[in-house]
Amino acid sequence: MGHSGGVDLGGTKIQVAILGDDGEVAGQSRRPTPTAGGPKDVAHEIAGALRDAAAEAGIKTSALEGIGVGSPGKVDDEAGTVAGAKNLPGWGGSYDLRHALEKACGAPVSLGNDVQVATDAEFELGSGQPYRSLLGVFWGTGVGGGIVLDGRPWIGRDAAGEIGHVVVRQNGALCGCGRRGCMEAYAGRASMEARARRRAGRGENTVLFKIMEERGRTRLTSGVWSRALDKGDPLARRLIERAVRALGTGIASSQNLLDVEAVVIGGGLGLRLGEPYVERIRDAMMPHLFDDERPPVVALAALGDLGGAIGASLLVKKAVAARA
Amino acid sequence: MGHSGGVDLGGTKIQVAILGDDGEVAGQSRRPTPTAGGPKDVAHEIAGALRDAAAEAGIKTSALEGIGVGSPGKVDDEAGTVAGAKNLPGWGGSYDLRHALEKACGAPVSLGNDVQVATDAEFELGSGQPYRSLLGVFWGTGVGGGIVLDGRPWIGRDAAGEIGHVVVRQNGALCGCGRRGCMEAYAGRASMEARARRRAGRGENTVLFKIMEERGRTRLTSGVWSRALDKGDPLARRLIERAVRALGTGIASSQNLLDVEAVVIGGGLGLRLGEPYVERIRDAMMPHLFDDERPPVVALAALGDLGGAIGASLLVKKAVAARA
Repeated sequence: MGHSGGVDLGGTKIQVAILGDDGEVAGQSRRPTPTAGGPKDVAHEIAGALRDAAAEAGIKTSALEGIGVGSPGKVDDEAGTVAGAKNLPGWGGSYDLRHALEKACGAPVSLGNDVQVATDAEFELGSGQPYRSLLGVFWGTGVGGGIVLDGRPWIGRDAAGEIGHVVVRQNGALCGCGRRGCMEAYAGRASMEARARRRAGRGENTVLFKIMEERGRTRLTSGVWSRALDKGDPLARRLIERAVRALGTGIASSQNLLDVEAVVIGGGLGLRLGEPYVERIRDAMMPHLFDDERPPVVALAALGDLGGAIGASLLVKKAVAARA
Repeated sequence: MGHSGGVDLGGTKIQVAILGDDGEVAGQSRRPTPTAGGPKDVAHEIAGALRDAAAEAGIKTSALEGIGVGSPGKVDDEAGTVAGAKNLPGWGGSYDLRHALEKACGAPVSLGNDVQVATDAEFELGSGQPYRSLLGVFWGTGVGGGIVLDGRPWIGRDAAGEIGHVVVRQNGALCGCGRRGCMEAYAGRASMEARARRRAGRGENTVLFKIMEERGRTRLTSGVWSRALDKGDPLARRLIERAVRALGTGIASSQNLLDVEAVVIGGGLGLRLGEPYVERIRDAMMPHLFDDERPPVVALAALGDLGGAIGASLLVKKAVAARA
């Protein structure tokens, strides 16, 4: 097999990796996700990022064995479409992303769910390698989950893994999804930022927004949270502790149901806060773990920021095998 | 294949079914589970119940193709042992149940988890038949869960399916397991009875204990709850509503993670309260269901009280296939 391309399509950025025959990253590129326009404009940027990364690997995109895309929204690989990707501009309906990219790049395109391909990447090449069953938890703007059972992805009827919407408190905090008490309502960066803004608006003392401005940001990014924690900011510390407690509760509930061998923690906040916070999440799981004499391994994602793109490139190998 | 025996080993009763070649129930028997003694005494009663049921089917136990046992506690089919079955007398340690029953009955014995075999029975012969993925929820003294994914039982590292210990409220009610906020702490009959006793002790008005005494019971059985609801008892109604809300929340959380096609509701209380309460559980799931445009089918268990024993008998077929 030759080179394959992997695309991690996020609400903020498009990350591309080109993988060589040996599984090594031969090229990569990154572009901001368009904030205006529609699916066509996003597809145009993806194709551009693929060309950049392929050039770094010394090839044309038409020489790729295939291209895999990990996408948010409702992904239908059979039809080649992505629908209802709320975080992407003008992408409420269904769009034939495969057709657009195949035309622009001249290589066959496979589609997968963003969180599931990141979980598969950790399973095949990252922290999940030693295990046959795995729960991937991606702690970022929201909290996404991916499941591998007995060596195979479990996606249910296409909507499995919504660990962010496992309830941690009946009638609890309002979630971005409109429901109450979801884990994401406590642990998602978007919910945490909304709460921090309300608290700061009421006069509570915090350096969060000062750091945000100093760094030229308009949002409380993972880096902003991390810096505020380093400075001992009490509001940041309280909100992160609350998030960790919710993560511990929701992951333990999931483990009581699934009994997997390992949990891998990734996502923007997870990767940024790193091992010390993986340890805290592990501790926060213990009070709710039914089989607490045999907790699962809880590990930091090993592939970092490139995990999503590498996972997407693995879709190519599977598509080639399916065609054979 | 000839006749096979199935044993549902519960804390209250031992239920046995003999299944004919055609899958029809050819004989059955029931004995109370010993409340004193140890595993040997329990095994003795199981063997007796098997002899009774086999006699009803017109055969000896030694003529059985095999015997399957669905057991609580830690079941190790490879070793033939059951350990830590808290609801059975003197069964804290490990006991070689296979050896005891094979010696007493003269037929090969297979062991399985009680809740998982009941789920498998609903999957193969009951309400789950039309589906490939299934969550079984057994609402009784506790709340047990069994999982079938892509046509196969998912048992994790042997401890999957503990849906009763999915958290519905951080820092919530104390559960029989010693943890806080588990679904079972609100919905398990044991927790509900403890709460009813406290409330009645504080002078709250209820017919629950009057009905219990009239029926010659020492516990609030499913029948007692059902009769109290029929009489419009306000305490019974409130506690059952609270249980239904917890079930809805915990099952919806599980569905957000697993995205199965169907949920089957069984167990003593589930079967006794029947379809109207399945409907209420379905409604209680909706506010927490992430993919609420496509809720799973929620159905009452079809095999009733015999589900566990029938499911255990299915272990025989699998053991025969594995030997071949």
